[in-house]
Amino acid sequence: MIHSLESLRTAVKGQGPKKLAVAVAQDAEVLLAVDGARKLGLATAILIGDEALIRQIAQEHEIPMDCYEIIHETDKVQACRTAVKLVRDGRADVVMKGIIDTSVILKAVLDKEIGLRESPVLSHVALFEVPGFDRLFLITDAAMNIAPDLEAKKHIIRNAVKVAHSMGNETPVVTCLCAVEKVNPKMAATLDAAALAEANRAGEIQGCIVNGPLALDNAISTEAAKHKGITDPYAGHADVLMVPNIETGNVFYKSLVFMAGAKNAGVIVGAKAPVVLTSRADSDETKLNSIALALMIASR
Amino acid sequence: MIHSLESLRTAVKGQGPKKLAVAVAQDAEVLLAVDGARKLGLATAILIGDEALIRQIAQEHEIPMDCYEIIHETDKVQACRTAVKLVRDGRADVVMKGIIDTSVILKAVLDKEIGLRESPVLSHVALFEVPGFDRLFLITDAAMNIAPDLEAKKHIIRNAVKVAHSMGNETPVVTCLCAVEKVNPKMAATLDAAALAEANRAGEIQGCIVNGPLALDNAISTEAAKHKGITDPYAGHADVLMVPNIETGNVFYKSLVFMAGAKNAGVIVGAKAPVVLTSRADSDETKLNSIALALMIASR
Repeated sequence: MIHSLESLRTAVKGQGPKKLAVAVAQDAEVLLAVDGARKLGLATAILIGDEALIRQIAQEHEIPMDCYEIIHETDKVQACRTAVKLVRDGRADVVMKGIIDTSVILKAVLDKEIGLRESPVLSHVALFEVPGFDRLFLITDAAMNIAPDLEAKKHIIRNAVKVAHSMGNETPVVTCLCAVEKVNPKMAATLDAAALAEANRAGEIQGCIVNGPLALDNAISTEAAKHKGITDPYAGHADVLMVPNIETGNVFYKSLVFMAGAKNAGVIVGAKAPVVLTSRADSDETKLNSIALALMIASR
Repeated sequence: MIHSLESLRTAVKGQGPKKLAVAVAQDAEVLLAVDGARKLGLATAILIGDEALIRQIAQEHEIPMDCYEIIHETDKVQACRTAVKLVRDGRADVVMKGIIDTSVILKAVLDKEIGLRESPVLSHVALFEVPGFDRLFLITDAAMNIAPDLEAKKHIIRNAVKVAHSMGNETPVVTCLCAVEKVNPKMAATLDAAALAEANRAGEIQGCIVNGPLALDNAISTEAAKHKGITDPYAGHADVLMVPNIETGNVFYKSLVFMAGAKNAGVIVGAKAPVVLTSRADSDETKLNSIALALMIASR
């Protein structure tokens, strides 16, 4: 089981070379992240985009282009479709976003003809290494689904559980985070949490333990849960923290990065292959971690 | 201006002795917190509750009862009303909850005849000292208002602004936290954030700068805001972080305490005097900080 982001990178390296399909690759930040992954021995890449621009940026940043295959495609929508097709045809393992709107690449991923559609819901999964904790946490969904309903939450959990499985955690504990521990009809998140735990017990959500409603302290700390008198044996043992809405997830995510000194990775899951969307705000290390996480998921 | 929880305690001490009215005081944890505040020179207290039980607990924990006035009252509802009346009559400065449901004490606080009603909305304000930051943050509302509408948010902001003023921050920056920086009609929090900033510009919310929508990183870090190309001159300068719903606030609060090593205080504001509701899950230091914050607010 993967317990740190370093061990994640090491495990990916040990699986042998993988391939990224980078859509609209003419961007310095993206090319530097891809080349970082190559230098670490994580993966090589097929770069789809404007070849002249890609070569110019590579030269400016001393990125050796002889390590890469380039597919010249100036149309950005078409570049996305080509990247997705490469993954569908088994020529690459992971789709990575270059300098293109997220919506465009996801449209290609979801395309019925050439796409990688699998789960009815695509979702964002963030992997966090928090100082002081001896295990990693998956947080979902901090970036994509705004206010998922109960059915969407089931898919979001299933998507995250597959990520946990890919990291060697065969029965992750998925905690549905709320502000309180008791079901309160005035708090929709608590009703959903109880329904999701029930759906898990009924076999509708498999390969994991779903619990909640629990507040964050009682989700991650057995001591806090004991102090509060919570009897759920999985309280305090969360591996996956499912947030009820995007604001909760986003503030949680940012508080970990900017206030708790946490390290992280993030990918879009729910399609047949993961999609890496690094952002300019990500550190170089986060970009590398995100690529590593996507490659780990792709190898399941 | 108060920049740390230690300087908050020092400032309260410097204001001279204040008085807590403790409702239903027959509880060891509560009495120990009150006596901690007395030892630090922050305040003394009038203890309202079952006198025999209070004296027994005090003896067991070596709390010197000659420092306290006790009002014997075995009826818990009546004990709450007495505590509130003591504050209304100027005999005490702050109401503190003992071993009684929060709803009971807040009912007394809101009582039209004997209560302390002021703002139409009571709200919870948490004060945080986060390692690595040179200023304190107020977070509201992480514990009381579940899903406040626009009008309620205006009151929540006004309540928090008074707290900031009491700590010497004359024009706090109030950032309405969202998952993104742009108004998105699919995200109600962004619409409210823009409306709140506009209400501030129109003079409807005074004594502060309200901005948003902003994600947490761009609310607290000028570097992150600059990197993202945000032009709002107050981005990165938030003093008050207003969350859109209780789940966001609660997860944020708990992440700071349990994952970022932050120290904190919390009170209920919006009445003529603050109400201290320490919880069993609070550390001794947090309980003291909460008492100190309430006393600081009471002295404004």
